[in-house]
Amino acid sequence: MENGTLAYIDYVAKVKDTGEVLEATREADAKNLGVFDPTERYSPRLVAVGEGWVLKGLDEALAKASVGEKLTVEVPPEKGFGVRDPSKVKLINEKKFGEKAHDLFVGAEVEVDGKVGTVRYMGSGRVQVDFNHRLAGKTIVYELEVVRTVTEPLEMAKALLGRRLFIPEDKLNLNIEGDIATIVLPEEAFLLEGLQFVKRAVSSDLFKFLKALKAVRFIEEYKSPEAEKPKEASHPAGAEPQEAAPPTEKA
Amino acid sequence: MENGTLAYIDYVAKVKDTGEVLEATREADAKNLGVFDPTERYSPRLVAVGEGWVLKGLDEALAKASVGEKLTVEVPPEKGFGVRDPSKVKLINEKKFGEKAHDLFVGAEVEVDGKVGTVRYMGSGRVQVDFNHRLAGKTIVYELEVVRTVTEPLEMAKALLGRRLFIPEDKLNLNIEGDIATIVLPEEAFLLEGLQFVKRAVSSDLFKFLKALKAVRFIEEYKSPEAEKPKEASHPAGAEPQEAAPPTEKA
Repeated sequence: MENGTLAYIDYVAKVKDTGEVLEATREADAKNLGVFDPTERYSPRLVAVGEGWVLKGLDEALAKASVGEKLTVEVPPEKGFGVRDPSKVKLINEKKFGEKAHDLFVGAEVEVDGKVGTVRYMGSGRVQVDFNHRLAGKTIVYELEVVRTVTEPLEMAKALLGRRLFIPEDKLNLNIEGDIATIVLPEEAFLLEGLQFVKRAVSSDLFKFLKALKAVRFIEEYKSPEAEKPKEASHPAGAEPQEAAPPTEKA
Repeated sequence: MENGTLAYIDYVAKVKDTGEVLEATREADAKNLGVFDPTERYSPRLVAVGEGWVLKGLDEALAKASVGEKLTVEVPPEKGFGVRDPSKVKLINEKKFGEKAHDLFVGAEVEVDGKVGTVRYMGSGRVQVDFNHRLAGKTIVYELEVVRTVTEPLEMAKALLGRRLFIPEDKLNLNIEGDIATIVLPEEAFLLEGLQFVKRAVSSDLFKFLKALKAVRFIEEYKSPEAEKPKEASHPAGAEPQEAAPPTEKA
């Protein structure tokens, strides 16, 4: 697949030497491998070939793969989570942990001076903490399938939008007319944290992958509280007076 | 003027007993009275009669005033900044201010436990701080003129929008078609702090004062970086570049 291709891939990712399952995109795989998480939404993962959305080694393999292909990709540390850096393993005096020193155990995750590490060894009043990434030095194996590429502009736009804006697709009103993409946001999105940055990032993605696009338009519509009420006018004439009407409604 | 009327008023507001000028909406008045501030935009103030946008006493006077009328309004403390509450005057030990105690002086504004007050007296290691509003107990005098009311829906909408969104009017693209108001925000507004809350408040204002309105639609448009590049193709071959002419002046 060419660089810049949008594709959906399914895969199981494992640590080569331990067989630990890191990720599975298919529900059946997750269940078979005993890593099923009911809060997870299992579906093929969107990737943009060569864009660095995934580990470098995986990105390179995708560039050589074709749609429908099933392949196994081995990603060595230097193209994955990095090699282990021995200088990131530190001996720390137990006193530094204060009262928390009593709760330490080998394997515990600790934060020291803003850095997260794992306790490897304890003794003689000192604690060995490894600040390398948990997967540094590990080779990652992907058993993957390129499900399909996304080439239709509207579907591309939806896929890109869904990646940034975590709103169910059926609530997202997106269409492309001529060279303008219009996105009507649902009211539940209006107060999302960082919404304005998401809009800018989505626009930037759309312009990158849909070269013909000239503008991305976001629409937010507020409805009149009056318009949203059930229509009183449909009550038969002579109906009871509308009690408890807020003062602003007095004519 | 009826409650709910939108009107522009010009005024000079003074403290009755000292003559201190608090506010002037006309540039000429500000200059004559020696309170001119070049960073201020002098123009009549938008008010909504009876909506509590101004001091209660002023609001009540506006309800009885007519367009074009010039009047003097005296607002007593109980309909203005409140009466003075003697229990809000506290004696505080100097030590409470720590090192800052050395910088205190009578008249200084200080913050104590999150409340702002004014130092009234200092001595014997104690500081008397008045936590009443600076204008509590004062009668405020307005010399005012009701310039005009705003009744045309589009102008009403623009006035309401301008009150919440501090963007020059010529940059605000606002129109009303049928029962839908559409506001196209300029790019410089996209990252305004609290933008989403401003939108909600503006919508709420519009629905309140323009009863016929059913929806308020905000549009934010991002332009493709490609589309914004100068179009090389449109320059006639061999023509001189159009120098220094601001784009709006090209006929």
